[in-house]
This record gives sequence, C-alpha cells and structure tokens, in this order.
Amino acid sequence: MIFIGEKINGTRNVIKKAILDRDAAYIQEIAKSQAEAGADYLDINAGTEPERETEDLLWLIETVQWVVETPICIDSSTASAIQEAIKIVKQTPMINSINGDPRRLEEFLPFIKEKGCPVIALALDESKSGMPKTIEERMMVLERIFKATREMGIADDKIFIDPLIMAVATDQKAGTLAFDCICTIRATYPEAHITGGLSNISFGLPNRALINRTFLTLAVAAGMDSAVVNPSNVELIESLYATELLLGRDKFCRKYTTASKTGFIKK
Amino acid sequence: MIFIGEKINGTRNVIKKAILDRDAAYIQEIAKSQAEAGADYLDINAGTEPERETEDLLWLIETVQWVVETPICIDSSTASAIQEAIKIVKQTPMINSINGDPRRLEEFLPFIKEKGCPVIALALDESKSGMPKTIEERMMVLERIFKATREMGIADDKIFIDPLIMAVATDQKAGTLAFDCICTIRATYPEAHITGGLSNISFGLPNRALINRTFLTLAVAAGMDSAVVNPSNVELIESLYATELLLGRDKFCRKYTTASKTGFIKK
Repeated sequence: MIFIGEKINGTRNVIKKAILDRDAAYIQEIAKSQAEAGADYLDINAGTEPERETEDLLWLIETVQWVVETPICIDSSTASAIQEAIKIVKQTPMINSINGDPRRLEEFLPFIKEKGCPVIALALDESKSGMPKTIEERMMVLERIFKATREMGIADDKIFIDPLIMAVATDQKAGTLAFDCICTIRATYPEAHITGGLSNISFGLPNRALINRTFLTLAVAAGMDSAVVNPSNVELIESLYATELLLGRDKFCRKYTTASKTGFIKK
Repeated sequence: MIFIGEKINGTRNVIKKAILDRDAAYIQEIAKSQAEAGADYLDINAGTEPERETEDLLWLIETVQWVVETPICIDSSTASAIQEAIKIVKQTPMINSINGDPRRLEEFLPFIKEKGCPVIALALDESKSGMPKTIEERMMVLERIFKATREMGIADDKIFIDPLIMAVATDQKAGTLAFDCICTIRATYPEAHITGGLSNISFGLPNRALINRTFLTLAVAAGMDSAVVNPSNVELIESLYATELLLGRDKFCRKYTTASKTGFIKK
C-alpha cells in the first residue's frame, strides 16, 4: 500500500490557521508524525485564496522539508502554483491532481512528463456538472485521461486513479459502486494504482472510523493499492495488516506478526 | 446474518468442567448472554466420552432451555445422541453436522428430513485422510451431499455449508482459498447458506480477534451469510454492521445508525 498522508490541508480549519499564522512548529509536528507513521507521500494543500496560494504552498513545503524527507504530494488545481512548488521540492513529488478536463490535461501533462511525477487522476470531468454517477461515466473519463497520458509517453504506473468514493448515507449503493468500480479499473488498467480518500464513504454517519477501515478492507480486496489517509490511525493500519495477511500477501505472516509485536505503526 | 453461538462446547475446558460438575448456573449465564447478544441458534456440544455424551447433551439442552428460547444447534457426531436430543428440544433445532461420508448421510438425513431441521454440512469426507486441500475437492464432496439431500427432498436452503476454513499461519493462501471457495459455493448453490467458525483462520497468530473480524468482512462480501461465533464480541459485530452497510444491504443506513446509537449488540 502506498499511503498519502492527508493531514496538511488548508481546507481544515486548524491547518488554515497555522498557515495564516505561519505556525511552522505545528505544521512540522504533523509532518513528522505522518512520516514516522509510514506515509509514503505527504499531501500539501494550502487551500487559501488564489492570490496567496502559491506563496502559502511554498512556505508549507519548505516548512515540511525542514523536518522530514518524505516526498511531497503537491495538491493544487493551479498549474502555476504546482510548477513553482516543483522547483523547491527535494524529491520527485506526486501531483494532486488531474482529471478528464482537456484544458487541465493540456496544462499539467507536460511538466508531469518532464519531471517524471506520479499523478492522481480523478475520474471526473469538470466540463460536466457534478460528480459522475455510474461506473461507465467514470471509465469514459479515465479512457480520455489514459489516451492523453499514453500519447504523452507517461507510463500507466505513474497514474494513481481516484475512483471518487461517494457517501453511503446519501446513496445506499455507494459502497458496492466503489468496489465494482475498483475491480473494473484494476482489470482495465492493471499497471495503474488506485487511490482515494476514505472519509467520503462515511460522511454523515456515526463511528466514521469503523466504516472507513471496513471500507479499506473491502476496497483493497477489490484492487485498491493506495489511499489518502491519516497514517497515524492505528486501527486503520492494523486492519490493513490483517487484510493483506488474509489476501495472501504476507509471506510467513512475517509483516503481521512483526507489526503485532512492535506496534502496527511506527511512533 | 445467521449467528450460531459457539460458546457452549465441552471441548473447551471451562465448559467441560461445568458439565462434569453439573454447574447449571454457569451454563445458563453463557446461554443468556449469547441469546441476548442476538444469537439465532445456540450450539450445544457435550464433547464428553461416548458412553456419557447423550446424557450430558440432554442435561445441557434442558439447562439451556430453562432460561432461553433461542433454538438449539445440536452438535454431535453420534446419530443416536442427536435423535435423543431432538425429542426434548422445544423448537426445531439445527443439526451440526453432516459431511460427505455416505454412512453419516444415510444415518442422519432421514430424521433431518422428518423434522425439517436445518443442518450444517462440512465440505469434507471422512473416508479420505485429513482435510480437503483444494476448492475442487470441497466442491466434489458438496456435490455428493447435495445429491443425497435433494434425493431425500431436503430443500437447499436448509443446508448450511461449512467450507472448512484453515489457518493462514500454516498456509499463506488459506484466506484467498476460503474467499474463492465461498464465491464458488455461492454461485453453485445460491439457495444454500454458508457458515463456519472464524477462529481457525487466525490459529497460531497474535491479535486473533482482529484477524477474525477482518476475515468475516471479506467472507461476507464473498457470500458467507452465517457464522459460528461468540455473538457477544462487540468489535466483531460492529465490524459486521459496517460491512453490511458498505455492501448496500442496509436501507437508509437504518440498522447501522440504530445499532450505533443503542449499542452494536443488545446487553
């Protein structure tokens, strides 16, 4: 599993405040805890107004890189902000995100190709109103995205597909739609990664962490191999260890037994 | 899900002692706690020597029926013990168990048919040495069992197939074998139930409850609709509620939200 640490996101109030206050210590503490817990990438989203987003994003990245070596996942919808950020990252960053919008593909793909960045591809199309409802709509968008990335010579394994997980509270079939969609994507793009945030699925319901970790178990069985999560969530991580054990991916149960002995996440 | 409460089993030392001491209060306490937690059947296994098994089984059943109305799952390999037990149960019992052994089918099926009992059918064959290794071996045994039950006029939905879950610690593929086997059984015998104990899967490993509940999530997704469990295991049951929610089986999330509010198991 490839974990993208989700916590440094300016759309969260505590992070927004830390950004506006230039509270480097707070941001660094979160960065360190996610890195130590085993995050493969740290998502960095300034989430501030367009006129200051680039400046905030650069400050966040520098602040984080001061204390951890974990690669950054640059999270922005603005090509110019990402391009500035790429100049200062110390390791090849992941880009979050492209989607089926032709203009965004045209803007983003050249520098993604040039820098060899992995990239999150949302299975939605900005030209349509709202989120895709069916698997077919998602697959059509992905077809357009892969046509563009392949033409550009970007390898499929650089693409982290986000199938767009919806809330089961508003649509009873949101879970099965997600699992079926993950299966279809895995079969269609076997080299690509499948990622996504888990928290949408449990939106509006009690005991969200329980739903999220149960969802992860079923999603991993369906073919998901990455997730945008809080990697310090012990119950989520231990549940994932058990899942990989049961899916036959843990030789001699070594990873599970070691983690069980030493703690399911590093601290 | 159809839960068969597993705790009153004389192969467990504490239960064996209670049976030998005729400690009715202890047995009744366990019976009540499983019934209140939502068990659909209470498995009763005397587990004592052949010469006293029937007497112990009858005592256990009477002791249990004194305090709960939950149907009994009569667990014995001796036809005569089961037949005596059937005479005293207050509700139609489940029988645990038949298997592919022709002699056992011949002995057991007539009274199972006559009383209309649901029955657990193990996908193993006593004439072979040891447990079946592959899905194909299990399916061959089941074919023989269903040939016999159908000829006898026993409906498929009376059969609770136990696919025989093995330990992942001794075979890395035990989990995937179980899930594939459950899928195959579900497709081949759509009307039948699929049940089984969960604890074998985690044998020899630490944090067994974590493995067991993660296994249940994946097994239910594959088509399992019953389990031989301790129904008072809150973490197992809450995990199951989340699983059914995510599999689209909980209209308006009503069961999940109610359980979350009032406690995932009754107490």
